[in-house]
Amino acid sequence: MTNSRLNGTVRIVGAGLLGTSIGLALSNKGVDVVLDDNSPANQRLAIEYGAGRKPLVTDKPSLVIVCVPPDVTARTVAAELTAHPGAVVTDVASVKLEIAKQLTELGADLTRYVGSHPMAGRERGGALAGRADLFFTRPWVIAAAAQSSPSAVQLVEALALDLGAIPTRMDAAAHDRAVAVVSHVPQVVSTLLAARLNDASGEQVALAGQGLRDTTRIAASDPALWVQILSANAEQIRPILEALNKDLENLVSALADVEAAGSLSVIGDALKRGNAGVAQIPGKHGARAQNYARVIVMIDDKPGQLARLLTEIGEVGVNIEDLKLEHSPGAQVGLPELYVLPEAEGKLIQALTERGWRIAG
Amino acid sequence: MTNSRLNGTVRIVGAGLLGTSIGLALSNKGVDVVLDDNSPANQRLAIEYGAGRKPLVTDKPSLVIVCVPPDVTARTVAAELTAHPGAVVTDVASVKLEIAKQLTELGADLTRYVGSHPMAGRERGGALAGRADLFFTRPWVIAAAAQSSPSAVQLVEALALDLGAIPTRMDAAAHDRAVAVVSHVPQVVSTLLAARLNDASGEQVALAGQGLRDTTRIAASDPALWVQILSANAEQIRPILEALNKDLENLVSALADVEAAGSLSVIGDALKRGNAGVAQIPGKHGARAQNYARVIVMIDDKPGQLARLLTEIGEVGVNIEDLKLEHSPGAQVGLPELYVLPEAEGKLIQALTERGWRIAG
Repeated sequence: MTNSRLNGTVRIVGAGLLGTSIGLALSNKGVDVVLDDNSPANQRLAIEYGAGRKPLVTDKPSLVIVCVPPDVTARTVAAELTAHPGAVVTDVASVKLEIAKQLTELGADLTRYVGSHPMAGRERGGALAGRADLFFTRPWVIAAAAQSSPSAVQLVEALALDLGAIPTRMDAAAHDRAVAVVSHVPQVVSTLLAARLNDASGEQVALAGQGLRDTTRIAASDPALWVQILSANAEQIRPILEALNKDLENLVSALADVEAAGSLSVIGDALKRGNAGVAQIPGKHGARAQNYARVIVMIDDKPGQLARLLTEIGEVGVNIEDLKLEHSPGAQVGLPELYVLPEAEGKLIQALTERGWRIAG
Repeated sequence: MTNSRLNGTVRIVGAGLLGTSIGLALSNKGVDVVLDDNSPANQRLAIEYGAGRKPLVTDKPSLVIVCVPPDVTARTVAAELTAHPGAVVTDVASVKLEIAKQLTELGADLTRYVGSHPMAGRERGGALAGRADLFFTRPWVIAAAAQSSPSAVQLVEALALDLGAIPTRMDAAAHDRAVAVVSHVPQVVSTLLAARLNDASGEQVALAGQGLRDTTRIAASDPALWVQILSANAEQIRPILEALNKDLENLVSALADVEAAGSLSVIGDALKRGNAGVAQIPGKHGARAQNYARVIVMIDDKPGQLARLLTEIGEVGVNIEDLKLEHSPGAQVGLPELYVLPEAEGKLIQALTERGWRIAG
């Protein structure tokens, strides 16, 4: 009995963070998951963790998911296509064009292959970092080749949906351009920033706050994996780093003579472009955060106030797109931030004011 | 009756994020806090929020805390020293050497002045972002001048201790060098990275994950404030950015020809230096979120569900300390994160489960 969209056995090759996480999630749904790994110790760890069972020579998987490092992904996919002629094969590597190119060179049967890339990860790797909910609500890029059969594409989309991810179709080149800007360049920048701390004293890093921690968190990522990713997608990454380098040099020039006319506006413009850039990152429902109006209501800090507020907003008929409540210990009021469609803002403020609520912003 | 280390009236000038947060924390401890701000609207907002009371001409503060933007800090400190000859005056600006220099030029009485800088902040400013626990477990740099009287230094240290911060003595020059590496350069790098998103398409940023969100979070900071900080500390920031620029250029060269001998080791070495750098950051001390237990509930994405959940939690008698609701594109469920006191977690989960709510984590 399973509530999965997948039928039959699913074979996972590679019991690292992604393979283990997929295995955990599918096993939870009652799918028969086979877990294979070059390292018997790794394989046993992931199996004990609940991510699947040992392979048998009689296994006839309907789907094979290759979760090995990018540099051995193409050859592993090709081997699995040959070993399991009835199976659709996908992979989860962070680059897609290079792998498609290698598979073509290897003469693989591309009708049964659909490249994919779940946009999920952690700065820690390995089976023990695996989580069944790793993919939940995350985009999962489905980068089908021209040769991929429609039923193979559907099967990989079913996998993404089974894991709670959002299948997003994109060709391999578009994928590689996108991850260069949203993933690979941030990795490089975080790495370069963190490297500066090697020149800092203990007294200096003791002052580190959340800003430094957040900006450098992914600098802890696995160098061996990232050498492969960065080199495989170098053509897409390089122009973005060059543009960033130009901005950096302009800023350094302005800082070299802050008394010079125009230098402060160079610095200010850079900061404003940063504001504009971060506002591009989508919030709820894929819409941009800046597309919502924010209404802050001042409520008494006692139980039931927020529930009453939300109940009344429901009565008014306004939909809350996002809600944030921060509670300052000791403050006499709470300040829930309600995010609504801009066209609903006026109506909400008026209705709440009429009902005696205090609008704080 | 107060459990504060401070005696008498504390006067806060500037009701922004820091002034309001200090006012909230001291008021909670029973201190008589006077709040002044050039903007009557700001001042009223912070006072309604519970951060202090209106000034009276008869006020004789023992301590004045100047919480205004860096470019007007020195002149405000000088004016307060003159207006309150019995008071010790401190400020909380992010740069210390430039302010000390300006105060010397103004001929201020430096025996009663002790510069300071709480290492706490948020990417949002303003009174409404204020939190009484903003400084809790954070370092608070005490940058005394040679002329500062020992009792004045002790008073500012008592202020830091009252707010749960860790007073850290450091001279102004050492402070400015330290914040360049742990705060100002990260701000610049996050800004430059976020600016690259202005060239990205909606399809591309839709793939954004936590790595991009974390690395660019502080890029949302106030440009007007940061122009002042970066220009006032340009001499310390520039050499670090130049070193980073050199590393970036090496990496770009390696990416330009990944087939060349040695290019992969250039990339790998950069990643390893990033690993080593991030490992320099001391462990988290008492981060706010760690003080609460988090319960995630899975709710249907339809109006009224959250109100019903919060109403039922009120009936159970559990107090919600913090609440976060993020809603992912295309998800059919909402996942409100409820932060509660650790001792209430079990009770909450049990009660919600009994009432048929699904606990997601």
